[in-house]
Amino acid sequence: MTQTPKNIAIIGSGLVGSLLAIYLRRWGHAVTVFDRRPDIRNVEFSGRSINLAMSNRGWKALREVGIEKEVKKIAIPLYKRAMHVIGQAEYFQNYGKEGEAIWSISRGVLNRKMIDLAEGAGAAFRFEEKVWDINLPEAKIYTGETEKGEWKEYRYDMVFGCDGAFSRVRHKMQRRSRFDYSQDFIDVGYKELRIPPNEDGSHQLDKHSFHIWPRGAFMLIAMPNLDGSFTCTLFMPFEGEVSFENITTEKQAREFFSKYFPNVMQVMDDLLEDFFKNPTSAMVTMKCYPWTYWDKVALVGDSAHAIVPFYGQGMNAGFEDIYALNRIMKRYGDDWETIFQTYQKERKPNADAIAELSYRNFMEMSSKTADPKFLLQKKIEKHFASKHPEKWIPAYSRVTFSERPYAEALAIGDAQEKIMQEVMQMPNLEAKWDSPEVEQKILSLL
Amino acid sequence: MTQTPKNIAIIGSGLVGSLLAIYLRRWGHAVTVFDRRPDIRNVEFSGRSINLAMSNRGWKALREVGIEKEVKKIAIPLYKRAMHVIGQAEYFQNYGKEGEAIWSISRGVLNRKMIDLAEGAGAAFRFEEKVWDINLPEAKIYTGETEKGEWKEYRYDMVFGCDGAFSRVRHKMQRRSRFDYSQDFIDVGYKELRIPPNEDGSHQLDKHSFHIWPRGAFMLIAMPNLDGSFTCTLFMPFEGEVSFENITTEKQAREFFSKYFPNVMQVMDDLLEDFFKNPTSAMVTMKCYPWTYWDKVALVGDSAHAIVPFYGQGMNAGFEDIYALNRIMKRYGDDWETIFQTYQKERKPNADAIAELSYRNFMEMSSKTADPKFLLQKKIEKHFASKHPEKWIPAYSRVTFSERPYAEALAIGDAQEKIMQEVMQMPNLEAKWDSPEVEQKILSLL
Repeated sequence: MTQTPKNIAIIGSGLVGSLLAIYLRRWGHAVTVFDRRPDIRNVEFSGRSINLAMSNRGWKALREVGIEKEVKKIAIPLYKRAMHVIGQAEYFQNYGKEGEAIWSISRGVLNRKMIDLAEGAGAAFRFEEKVWDINLPEAKIYTGETEKGEWKEYRYDMVFGCDGAFSRVRHKMQRRSRFDYSQDFIDVGYKELRIPPNEDGSHQLDKHSFHIWPRGAFMLIAMPNLDGSFTCTLFMPFEGEVSFENITTEKQAREFFSKYFPNVMQVMDDLLEDFFKNPTSAMVTMKCYPWTYWDKVALVGDSAHAIVPFYGQGMNAGFEDIYALNRIMKRYGDDWETIFQTYQKERKPNADAIAELSYRNFMEMSSKTADPKFLLQKKIEKHFASKHPEKWIPAYSRVTFSERPYAEALAIGDAQEKIMQEVMQMPNLEAKWDSPEVEQKILSLL
Repeated sequence: MTQTPKNIAIIGSGLVGSLLAIYLRRWGHAVTVFDRRPDIRNVEFSGRSINLAMSNRGWKALREVGIEKEVKKIAIPLYKRAMHVIGQAEYFQNYGKEGEAIWSISRGVLNRKMIDLAEGAGAAFRFEEKVWDINLPEAKIYTGETEKGEWKEYRYDMVFGCDGAFSRVRHKMQRRSRFDYSQDFIDVGYKELRIPPNEDGSHQLDKHSFHIWPRGAFMLIAMPNLDGSFTCTLFMPFEGEVSFENITTEKQAREFFSKYFPNVMQVMDDLLEDFFKNPTSAMVTMKCYPWTYWDKVALVGDSAHAIVPFYGQGMNAGFEDIYALNRIMKRYGDDWETIFQTYQKERKPNADAIAELSYRNFMEMSSKTADPKFLLQKKIEKHFASKHPEKWIPAYSRVTFSERPYAEALAIGDAQEKIMQEVMQMPNLEAKWDSPEVEQKILSLL
C-alpha cells in the first residue's frame, strides 16, 4: 500500500512528535515539526523529568522504523527492582523471566537522539515557533511571538497534535460541542534529584536495578544514566503532615532526608541545592474523545491521553499509538477519514485501560503497601504464578513485556482480582497461604 | 454582620448572574455585570431553551431577597405529570403531596425580569462587552470587540464567573496546574418546538401539568407559558436508527411525528418549520474544582457545575449556590478567603450529587422505562411510600420539595436502592408486590 504524499504539520518535537515524523517520512510525506520551545539539543535539561522506562511496546515501535538498535545504545537494561526498606538489607525482585528488562533512558538524551534521527529522515523542524490557534476543518495553523501579536498562517493537508498533556491542538478541539474531556490531578507531586557517579565514573548503586525506597504515602525512586549518575524522583503529597508544603527550610529538608532516607543522603552531594532549585511538579490523568477531526487533525500521545507515571508506560503508550496508526495506514491507504476513525476507536479503550492501571498502581503504592492483607494477597499470587506461570501472568508482565492490548491486561487483571477476593475469604489463610488447598482453590476458579 | 463595600464584576447576565447581582447589592457592594451578548430584553429568544422548572430551592433563594412573589407572577404551578403513552388514555401522576408543585417559567421571560430587578437594585449592566481574559490574582478583566483586537482592562476587587457551562472565567482557571475538570456529553440532543395557544388564548393541553410523551430512547415534553402556548422539547439521540441525524427531510419529519406523536402533531401548527429552523443542542455534565481563586475569583452556577436537565434542577442548584454563599458571607464578614473556601467545600459535594442524580434520571428514562423489573420496583416503592410516607420519601421529593442537601438526597436514594435490590430477590414478586410480606420485608431492612 502506498499513500499520496501529503504536506503534514506536527505540533510538538517531543518523543512522540519526533517518532511520528520518522514514520511519516517513510511514507514519503513532507513533514514540518513545530515547537514553541528552543531546540532541546542546544539547551540544558529542565530538572523536572522522571527517567523513562522503555519496555516492549516502545521497542516494537522503534524496531518498525529500524532505530531500535541505535536507541538501545543510550539505554540501560534494568532486570529487577532493588528495594530499600527501612530496617532491612537491600533486596531484589526480578521484573520478569530471564532476560526481561525495562530500559532506563534519560528523557533529554532520548529526545535529542530522536530529533537527530527525524532530521536525518528528512523532517524539517521549526523551533521557537509558537502555535496559538488551529483552524480544524482547513488544517491551518497560526503562529507568532505572542498570543495577541501578529500571527503567521500556514495551511497543511493534515495536522498532528503531539504537544503533550496541555496540548494547544486539543484545547481548540475541546471548545467544540460534544467533545468529552477530563483532567484529574493527584494530590502527590514529584521532584527530580540526582545521585552523582563515583569519581571513576561508575554507578554508586547497582546499575541494572530500578531502585525504590517505599515509605508509605511517599517514596523515592532512582534510575541509572549512562554517565554513572542516577536520576532520582521523590514522590510526596503536596500538602499534609509529610509534604512538600511542610519542607521549606534547609533544616527541615535535612531532617526529612536523615529520618527517611539516611543512606541516600550520603550519596547525594547536591541534595539540598537540588531540592530547592528543582520545581515540584504535578501529575495529571487526562482523557478526551474524539481524538481526530475529519481527515484533518489527530492527537497522538499525551495530548490524547496523559497518564500518571506509576506504570512507566506514558512514552510506551504514545509510541504504540504511532505503531497502531501506521498499521492502519497500511490498511486504508489514502482514506484518511477511515484511518483516523479506526485509529481513535482502536486506541481509546487501550488508553483508558493504561490510565486506569497507572492510577491503580499509584493508589496501591500510596495506601495499600502497608496493608498486611494486601501484602498477603500479593504473596499468594506470586507463589501461584511461580508454580503455574502459564496460568497466571501478572498484570505487570502483560503491560510491560507483552504486546497484547492494554485493555486486555486490565480485563484479565480484574478477573484475577475477583478470584483473589474469593481466595482471601478462606479461613486461616495466613497459616496456609502456600498450601495445596489454596492452590487448588485458585485452579478451581480459573 | 456587615461587609466593607467592594467593587465587584459579575461575568454573565443570565439567571445566576442577575440574582447574584441582587444579593451583592443588598450588601452594599458596587456591582457591574458584563455580558458578551446583547441585552436579552431587546432581542427575540433563541429557540434553544427548555422551559425552567422552579422548585423549592429556587424559591428559597428568591424569597431571601424579597422577589419570590414578583417572580411567581410569571410562573405557572404544575402539580402533576401528564403521561401520554401510545395506546393509552392520558393519565396523571401527582408530583408530591397536596399543593406541592414545580413551576414552569420561560427562560427568556424570567431572565428579562431578573435583569430588571437587578438594575432596580442598583447593578450596572454592560451588554455586548466581551471578556476575553482574566488576571486571576489581580481580579483584572480584559474586554474587546475581538480576541485578537484592542483590549480594555478593568480592575475589580473581585470577579464572579456566572458565564455558564462554557465559562471563560473557568477556562482561565483550567489552564492552571492542579485544576480538576471534566466535560461529558450525552449522545442525546434536544430541539425546542412549540404548541400555540387556542384562538381564545387558552392552553390546548392541561395547563397545570408537565406533559410527557415517553417513547423509550426518545421523548417529548411540554411545559406551559403565560401566553397560552407550550414550550416543547424533543429529546432524541443524535445518531442511530431513530435520531436527529436520520430526519433531514420534511417527509421524514412528518413520518416520524405521525408515527410516534400523532396527537401532538395536530396541535403543533409550525411543527415542521420549527423542527428545521431550531438548532439541535447538546447536553453536557461539567465538573471542576477548585471553584475559587484566593479571595479574588469565584465560579457560581453552571460555570462551576453544568448538569443535564433531566431533574429540572440546573437553575435551582445555581440559585442555591447564591443562597449558600450569602449565608457564609453572614458568618465571615470581610474574610473573603474563608468565605470562598467554605463556599466551595460546602457546595462541591452537592453539585456532584445533583449531577449524578440528573444523569441517572436520563439513564432511567432512556433505557429502563421499558424494563418490566424496573417498573415493578417503582410500583413497589410507590405503594410502600403511600403507606409509610414518613419512612420512605422518594428521591424526587427530597430533591424537588425539600431544602436538605442534594448529597443527602443522593445518599438516602442509594440506601433505598440497596433495600430494593434485596426486595427484588423475593420469589414470586409479581404476584405479591403489594402484600404485607413485601411491606414487612422493607420495614425490616429500613
